[in-house]
Amino acid sequence: MDEAVLREIVVPGTTKIVLLVMDGLGGLPHPDTGRSELETAEIPNLDALARQSVCGLTVPVGPGITPGSGPGHLALFGYDPIKYNIGRGVLEAVGIDFDLGPNDVAARGNFCTVGPDDLITNRRAGRIPTDLCIKLCAELAKIEIPGLEIFVEPVREHRFVLVFRGEGLADALHGTDPNREGLAPLPVRAQRPEAEATAQLFNGWIKAARTRLAHRDVANMVLVRGFAKYPDIPSMQSQYQLDPAAIAIYPMYRGLAKLVGMKALPGGTSFQDEIDTMRANWDEHDFFFIHYKPTDAAGEDGDFDRKVQALENIDKLIPQILDLNPDVLMVGGDHSTPSIMAAHSWHPVPFMLRSKLGQADRVQAFSEADCAGGVLGTFPAQHALSIAMAHAGRFTKYGA
Amino acid sequence: MDEAVLREIVVPGTTKIVLLVMDGLGGLPHPDTGRSELETAEIPNLDALARQSVCGLTVPVGPGITPGSGPGHLALFGYDPIKYNIGRGVLEAVGIDFDLGPNDVAARGNFCTVGPDDLITNRRAGRIPTDLCIKLCAELAKIEIPGLEIFVEPVREHRFVLVFRGEGLADALHGTDPNREGLAPLPVRAQRPEAEATAQLFNGWIKAARTRLAHRDVANMVLVRGFAKYPDIPSMQSQYQLDPAAIAIYPMYRGLAKLVGMKALPGGTSFQDEIDTMRANWDEHDFFFIHYKPTDAAGEDGDFDRKVQALENIDKLIPQILDLNPDVLMVGGDHSTPSIMAAHSWHPVPFMLRSKLGQADRVQAFSEADCAGGVLGTFPAQHALSIAMAHAGRFTKYGA
Repeated sequence: MDEAVLREIVVPGTTKIVLLVMDGLGGLPHPDTGRSELETAEIPNLDALARQSVCGLTVPVGPGITPGSGPGHLALFGYDPIKYNIGRGVLEAVGIDFDLGPNDVAARGNFCTVGPDDLITNRRAGRIPTDLCIKLCAELAKIEIPGLEIFVEPVREHRFVLVFRGEGLADALHGTDPNREGLAPLPVRAQRPEAEATAQLFNGWIKAARTRLAHRDVANMVLVRGFAKYPDIPSMQSQYQLDPAAIAIYPMYRGLAKLVGMKALPGGTSFQDEIDTMRANWDEHDFFFIHYKPTDAAGEDGDFDRKVQALENIDKLIPQILDLNPDVLMVGGDHSTPSIMAAHSWHPVPFMLRSKLGQADRVQAFSEADCAGGVLGTFPAQHALSIAMAHAGRFTKYGA
Repeated sequence: MDEAVLREIVVPGTTKIVLLVMDGLGGLPHPDTGRSELETAEIPNLDALARQSVCGLTVPVGPGITPGSGPGHLALFGYDPIKYNIGRGVLEAVGIDFDLGPNDVAARGNFCTVGPDDLITNRRAGRIPTDLCIKLCAELAKIEIPGLEIFVEPVREHRFVLVFRGEGLADALHGTDPNREGLAPLPVRAQRPEAEATAQLFNGWIKAARTRLAHRDVANMVLVRGFAKYPDIPSMQSQYQLDPAAIAIYPMYRGLAKLVGMKALPGGTSFQDEIDTMRANWDEHDFFFIHYKPTDAAGEDGDFDRKVQALENIDKLIPQILDLNPDVLMVGGDHSTPSIMAAHSWHPVPFMLRSKLGQADRVQAFSEADCAGGVLGTFPAQHALSIAMAHAGRFTKYGA
């Protein structure tokens, strides 16, 4: 839906909306039983909620398109995930809770190993231990370039985030990874003339980094790619007049939420912690995004039974969310992660929305096949928030 | 979906996709029984396939829009049928297997009859026999214009195809048919200044044609309309990295397929021939479009029982397609042709897709009403190929 139209019909309110995202929720039938993870799990609370909800299936990005976590969540936050494509560097930065600003260019870095001829012998430096990564990042953080603030933040093993902060930086840059061993690292190249100066700054830094690492046998060079600036996304405050909060254990999801203006609340270490956080902050916000990771983690590991268990575990906690009595409760997923694929997938994702203004439908259980018969049909995920806004009395009439 | 995004996520592969189009598949209930053609027919193989498939209804062009064969098929081939509108002249030309080139302007011609005052007395020259059409076309083919190659190809009865081949020709031209008898044929007029020269070339040809036909009592003049150049459509090779083949008995469907880069294989004279062709060429291609016409022909004739029979006939041959074991099998239609309307219609069309990565749904039979409950929902036909590409492992992840 056109963003300007939505801004025109938004009205302020005090109603409360909860978006519960079970990461990688959707699944596929187990070959032995013909039943998906949701159909296998004992989830009486989710099933009861489905009977009280309007149900459907969300298409995360587009038909047949398997989304990464970025586009999958942006869509559920009410944004066009194609229009607002988030660069790799930004995702990596928000994934370690780095506070990106509007003058920053972030990139993903790898330590790598080069031979005496400067050709790459190992693109990941043999996946050095994280401890060593931290030490090497501290060394590289000493590099200074006049006019720039530079951050070199360790991630895990050979991975780090490199951020340049300064006026007039551009992100239209090609990375240095030739994607193959036996080749030399490429220079940073500008994709457009206005990025030329920034390219030279990064090349200067890489040269200095090589000098500081040259004495080492492994991890004696860096590869840098995915240059990206903070995306220019209208906040949920300006777009939807919401005062939103995010509750997630993993930094990447908090970071994605912060990109659209959500306040990141402490996620703790369990979903029970997350619910406790929501309860403690219930009066402070009118929109809560609460994130549940174990469904995706089990799906990615190809562990059907553990994904079933993850569904049964969250089911037991659903009543605590209902006790808060949100005006609108959405339960869905950012994408499917079928255990039999051990990967994200394109399949439409079960979705339900409970409010006192929901149409009646005939859905009796929360599953892929059941939700297909709901009144919401199979619809783009980015429409979910508009539907929730309407049910929360936050949209006024369009046109006379 | 944005074409650039799709090109970005396409990956090469060896999986095989079959698109079976039953022309005019969708129907409406018989007034006596309340059951549609699909609900009336005994189609155990299609029903069994529906139980193994993900199902839905395709909207060929847009809600409420009744498509011709061109847009109906283009959508199923994965193209936006509004963006890639194929001109009437091109459709007529491909419909007689004429090999259009990039320098050609094709138009549809009618022989008509004019009186001594040059006013039209019969816009179709009383539907002259095809034999006479062939003879008259041979006569008109003798007209020469310097710098042009000119083709006058008979179609059927009063209809022919006129093709000018030459450098710098334009197709932004208004036709000469005033759409009413008692008026004079119009001159060809340019819609834009750059088409003025081409307009004059066609007017010169029409004048010469009138001279050659003037001695006749009927079919003594021509009407020309639907000027069109070969459309600028990205091929399925470039857009989807497929190596596609088309199998159809009727030239128009082969021609449509060739417009998007498919290789036209011999269709023979029966659907059994078409299947034999597919089997014989199975190793040569990774995408097969196979076309079944009798469903549409019966629907167009308003013959409910014959459409039921056409469905039962193809049902018996479905196992031969399954024996080829395509990774993805799509079964659908380019549009509905309800027998009780005896015409194409706008109604969404039953669709099913079988692959080993399909979600479970609850659809038990292949019909309009059953498919409405499938997980694919009611969706634009142009998304079908993306969904097939995903199930065939031909799309990678979008976004980080």
